[in-house]
Amino acid sequence: MRLNCDLGESYGSWTMGLDAEVMPHIDQANIACGFHGGDPLTIRNTLQLAAQHDVSVGAHPAYPDLVGFGRRSMALSSDEIIASLHYQISALDGMAQSAGLSLDYIKPHGALYNDMMAKSEVRLAIMQAIADYQRPLPLMLQATPDATSHRAEAGQLGLDLMFEVFADRCYDDDGKLLSRRKPGAVHDREKMLAQVAQLIEHGSLTTVSGHTLSLEADTLCVHGDNPEGVQAIREIRSLVNRS
Amino acid sequence: MRLNCDLGESYGSWTMGLDAEVMPHIDQANIACGFHGGDPLTIRNTLQLAAQHDVSVGAHPAYPDLVGFGRRSMALSSDEIIASLHYQISALDGMAQSAGLSLDYIKPHGALYNDMMAKSEVRLAIMQAIADYQRPLPLMLQATPDATSHRAEAGQLGLDLMFEVFADRCYDDDGKLLSRRKPGAVHDREKMLAQVAQLIEHGSLTTVSGHTLSLEADTLCVHGDNPEGVQAIREIRSLVNRS
Amino acid sequence: MRLNCDLGESYGSWTMGLDAEVMPHIDQANIACGFHGGDPLTIRNTLQLAAQHDVSVGAHPAYPDLVGFGRRSMALSSDEIIASLHYQISALDGMAQSAGLSLDYIKPHGALYNDMMAKSEVRLAIMQAIADYQRPLPLMLQATPDATSHRAEAGQLGLDLMFEVFADRCYDDDGKLLSRRKPGAVHDREKMLAQVAQLIEHGSLTTVSGHTLSLEADTLCVHGDNPEGVQAIREIRSLVNRS
Amino acid sequence: MRLNCDLGESYGSWTMGLDAEVMPHIDQANIACGFHGGDPLTIRNTLQLAAQHDVSVGAHPAYPDLVGFGRRSMALSSDEIIASLHYQISALDGMAQSAGLSLDYIKPHGALYNDMMAKSEVRLAIMQAIADYQRPLPLMLQATPDATSHRAEAGQLGLDLMFEVFADRCYDDDGKLLSRRKPGAVHDREKMLAQVAQLIEHGSLTTVSGHTLSLEADTLCVHGDNPEGVQAIREIRSLVNRS
Repeated sequence: MRLNCDLGESYGSWTMGLDAEVMPHIDQANIACGFHGGDPLTIRNTLQLAAQHDVSVGAHPAYPDLVGFGRRSMALSSDEIIASLHYQISALDGMAQSAGLSLDYIKPHGALYNDMMAKSEVRLAIMQAIADYQRPLPLMLQATPDATSHRAEAGQLGLDLMFEVFADRCYDDDGKLLSRRKPGAVHDREKMLAQVAQLIEHGSLTTVSGHTLSLEADTLCVHGDNPEGVQAIREIRSLVNRS
Repeated sequence: MRLNCDLGESYGSWTMGLDAEVMPHIDQANIACGFHGGDPLTIRNTLQLAAQHDVSVGAHPAYPDLVGFGRRSMALSSDEIIASLHYQISALDGMAQSAGLSLDYIKPHGALYNDMMAKSEVRLAIMQAIADYQRPLPLMLQATPDATSHRAEAGQLGLDLMFEVFADRCYDDDGKLLSRRKPGAVHDREKMLAQVAQLIEHGSLTTVSGHTLSLEADTLCVHGDNPEGVQAIREIRSLVNRS
Repeated sequence: MRLNCDLGESYGSWTMGLDAEVMPHIDQANIACGFHGGDPLTIRNTLQLAAQHDVSVGAHPAYPDLVGFGRRSMALSSDEIIASLHYQISALDGMAQSAGLSLDYIKPHGALYNDMMAKSEVRLAIMQAIADYQRPLPLMLQATPDATSHRAEAGQLGLDLMFEVFADRCYDDDGKLLSRRKPGAVHDREKMLAQVAQLIEHGSLTTVSGHTLSLEADTLCVHGDNPEGVQAIREIRSLVNRS
Repeated sequence: MRLNCDLGESYGSWTMGLDAEVMPHIDQANIACGFHGGDPLTIRNTLQLAAQHDVSVGAHPAYPDLVGFGRRSMALSSDEIIASLHYQISALDGMAQSAGLSLDYIKPHGALYNDMMAKSEVRLAIMQAIADYQRPLPLMLQATPDATSHRAEAGQLGLDLMFEVFADRCYDDDGKLLSRRKPGAVHDREKMLAQVAQLIEHGSLTTVSGHTLSLEADTLCVHGDNPEGVQAIREIRSLVNRS
């Protein structure tokens, strides 16, 4: 079980995220590509930080919505999605190589990620984009009960997948994230650590209604926006290391 | 002698340049990278057009100034120039490879090009950026009497240079372009063809004051913004082919 | 019956629309506010052109999507819509006053317009934005069979409405525009002029299935993107003048 | 003596400045207009905060350089400066009025401010822009020994000026700010308070070399980027209140 985190989301003079505090504790850095955050200097600095800590780097492409931080769904055509992903992935890939690293995977950001999970035409456009990219790279998406059908879709394009579970989010019985508007959507520290422990030991988690849901996860998504988040990452790191 | 032209400068719904008419007649396409023009779909389409016509492709990076089309000088630090170039070159490089092409060279655009020729700190930042890029790529710049010192600067970084001459611009005795505000700055058809013929046959051109200026040129810069430009490119192509 | 047209949609070095050819023939210019087109200089020039031809000016605000020309739906919150409209309307209003003009109305652009017609929460956010604006301004929207309910919604906020019909678009029996993907969605010259004549004389149009649909229209939307469009505007102008 | 501070410089999901902590202690809020910071929602929230604390609001327009936070000089033409200022001032003006406030003055931001002080053609373009604006508004600029000539320039256009002194910056004998690269460029707490006290009591300050420089100041520029800055503003407020 690996830990992944969204990083490099500062922009010019605006800082976001405690990247330097987070990087030593994670395995995979999802790096913003300029469309929702991440200007060229920020990308370069984040790549250098990842190299120092021997962290695997992924591209974290988004809808072109800087002011909305890529969190607002946008009605892009499949061709627009494909070209936008190629642009962002290429930018990260070349900069990673110039920093002595190799880009390892793709994880869409924000509303693009949500649309990927909810709308098959968006998901297929994303898969097509990565399959058409100049070299093979796996796509990271959410572990759900649909993993088998997602694998089938990807397989047809020769694409590998990585599945992630959210460490601190409560799941419903359908394997979806409980809406943030509902009570208990985000776990407190204790429940978060229990969820991680159950995932590691049993490959499952306990849903909002108390059912056990099996989810094959390759990686855990963690958040480093504030000191509490960094502390949580440290504790999850300990749990994972002990397993 | 090759012909190079700035292409791919449309942006979203806005069209610029007669790319489809120009591409069959040139050798090298300088493709906008998104900072002064060239959204991802435009870049993809331009690369496909270049592939169809077997045209060599170069990255045409710019200052981040969409509304000013990259034509206004901006006081970027060397680090900002380097990171901005890496981002733009990488984006073009990966997209070119995904289109089955290989990026062949870098030619800065607009005010960045002018600043490169006029200010050594800008030129050295650009050279450093390309030298630090993940694989060797030559820099295209203006052929001037300073070519020897530019070659020396580049040589220290292990960088190759390509020199270009402007087919339709009148030069002063110092080897600079005559300011567009002065009469005769832009040649008519006849003078342009005479300048190209002299460059091909004698490696020189005639300055505004009538002196002969020797300039070693690898490539001629031509413009395809309108039907007259496209017709001029055709005639220059004929001249070059006959030589 | 007045004629309105989207103008001022150029951006920096990119030109769009034959504004100078269109302006003499219309009554109302919907002027882009910078979010889908229309940089400050373009806005200023368009306002001066409107002043010369004594054309009424409206703000034409859009989603913040320059590369998509405001044509892609974006999931903005009501607060984001309201603040974005205030920003864009204010920019146009102050610039219009500085050009000796007075901003007369608001017409949302592209996907924001479509979402306004299709989704009540978007429509109400737009109405709220205009109602909260520092001075009263009417909203221009599409004449449909829902005009009465739209008037009721607006009335609750003390907002005036203007209704427009599209001169060159075929309507279905529900009073919606026939999808552009269907044959006959865009009228040829003859059908367009017949539709305009019927609207002027009878306050109705003939739908795709041959039914007569009554629509109260204050203004006709015309397009000046190309010479054919300009010629169509001239002919519609003649028809309207004769009535 | 009034206190002015740059506020509203957050952008979308990125926060900058402790606006809520600063607002209760200042007289004048220079509010970003969207070109270097300040998206529409941020502007709206900042205006509401200013209204709550009865703070005078000014527009803080900048070069169009979001990623560079308006801190990099850009070679705009006078026409581009004028149109850009009209756009930004208008946006703030209309939003201020919609929030029940009245825009009171203009203070250029960052590199545009520096260029205004250093280059007469930039300063004259800025003055022309404000003079041409739909209603009279004063321009805030730096108090220097050139104040008389600046007043003459403004007077020819019928423009009022406000002069500001920087509370925490060391001045050289020419009345310029000591370069930030030089030791002592930014005062510690004690020197800052002494400078403010001297300005209030004697209308002068002590330069880096120990000379006394007379400067007529209408307002003091203070900074609220961090808790130390907020504390400094509180202490300067006390000093000013006691005088």
